[in-house]
Amino acid sequence: MRHFRDELDELENKLVDMGRLVESSIHNSVYSLVERNEQMAKEVMWTEALINQQEMEIDDLATRLLALYQPMARDLRFLTSAIKINTDLERMGDMAVNITERALTLMKEPAIRPLIDIPKIAELAQGMVHNALDAFAERDADLARQVLRSDDEVDRLRDAVYDELLEFMQEESGTINRSVALMFIAQNLERIADHATNIAEDVLFMVKGIDVRHRAETTD
Amino acid sequence: MRHFRDELDELENKLVDMGRLVESSIHNSVYSLVERNEQMAKEVMWTEALINQQEMEIDDLATRLLALYQPMARDLRFLTSAIKINTDLERMGDMAVNITERALTLMKEPAIRPLIDIPKIAELAQGMVHNALDAFAERDADLARQVLRSDDEVDRLRDAVYDELLEFMQEESGTINRSVALMFIAQNLERIADHATNIAEDVLFMVKGIDVRHRAETTD
Repeated sequence: MRHFRDELDELENKLVDMGRLVESSIHNSVYSLVERNEQMAKEVMWTEALINQQEMEIDDLATRLLALYQPMARDLRFLTSAIKINTDLERMGDMAVNITERALTLMKEPAIRPLIDIPKIAELAQGMVHNALDAFAERDADLARQVLRSDDEVDRLRDAVYDELLEFMQEESGTINRSVALMFIAQNLERIADHATNIAEDVLFMVKGIDVRHRAETTD
Repeated sequence: MRHFRDELDELENKLVDMGRLVESSIHNSVYSLVERNEQMAKEVMWTEALINQQEMEIDDLATRLLALYQPMARDLRFLTSAIKINTDLERMGDMAVNITERALTLMKEPAIRPLIDIPKIAELAQGMVHNALDAFAERDADLARQVLRSDDEVDRLRDAVYDELLEFMQEESGTINRSVALMFIAQNLERIADHATNIAEDVLFMVKGIDVRHRAETTD
């Protein structure tokens, strides 16, 4: 039987790897639209299958470690956090697929405007996922708090995108279908950022044993 | 020390109670708009605070039971499922708040149409939450499968609402803001149904030990 620490490391590495896949899917989902590149869209769909596979493997591994080693305190919190982080990552993969489905429709039509803010939200969200997983791997509470702060910026940009798109629709009804599709893309990115925020909260709980959910942690 | 079985029962009862709160919030969020009743909207906001409180209590209890009793096999699956179901219920509470925020804006303006399909989706979603929690409490795999099937009907109705609202917007640009708000309400209801589906999948895993995630279970 391998040592418990090695197994925990393996679990952590698997989650970090899954995070990298999710990051690439966030990027590809939005840039498939920016660059009108169907190949990038296909990549997201394929990556989704890999992410789902990893979710099941990680869940099995975490549950097996709980049963086999009956960990206490910090290790127990690590394992229950891993189970939750796993779920958040898998849902982000779903959001990237939602974005890609909209992108595939939109790329067949003329652009209604340069997509300045949407790629910016995508990069922020991708960075949040990256930092949340780094914070998890490094037990870095400061980095986790930084993720919580980024979420406010994502919300602000998302609101700006909504306002701009509502104006477009009102001025030119021919843009309504495309504007609504872009709104849903912005909203899916905002949900990805929310999932990254959930991970950061789990990391803070794991590292500090403090529960920041439902508190105004971001205003610190 | 209380007996392990009693503690598991307490955990189960807490989750079922939380589910009832979520159900009432789904109902109140949509009917606050249907009946233009601000009091129902306030009720959702208040219930959200209770749901968040319960989420933290349930999480603490489940983690404590894992540490204290080091359960195996079925009991272990019950506890890891409880941790996930807890998260899904809390997120549904968030969705009900999102719906209510839209409802509070919409109720100040004239209705653009009777809200026939949206209350129907709300009732379906509420029924899915109810059945998913019953399936959990009764270890009822058939009822869990029924929840998975209902999700297809929710998706179908949501698409119909989208199509109808897109037509409204195109015909009359004065309805755009309200139509977009209604689309987001429909989407939040669909996400609630997705969370209920996640719970049903967890129940199937817990009861049967089979993993139906990412499989075409609903087409059985």
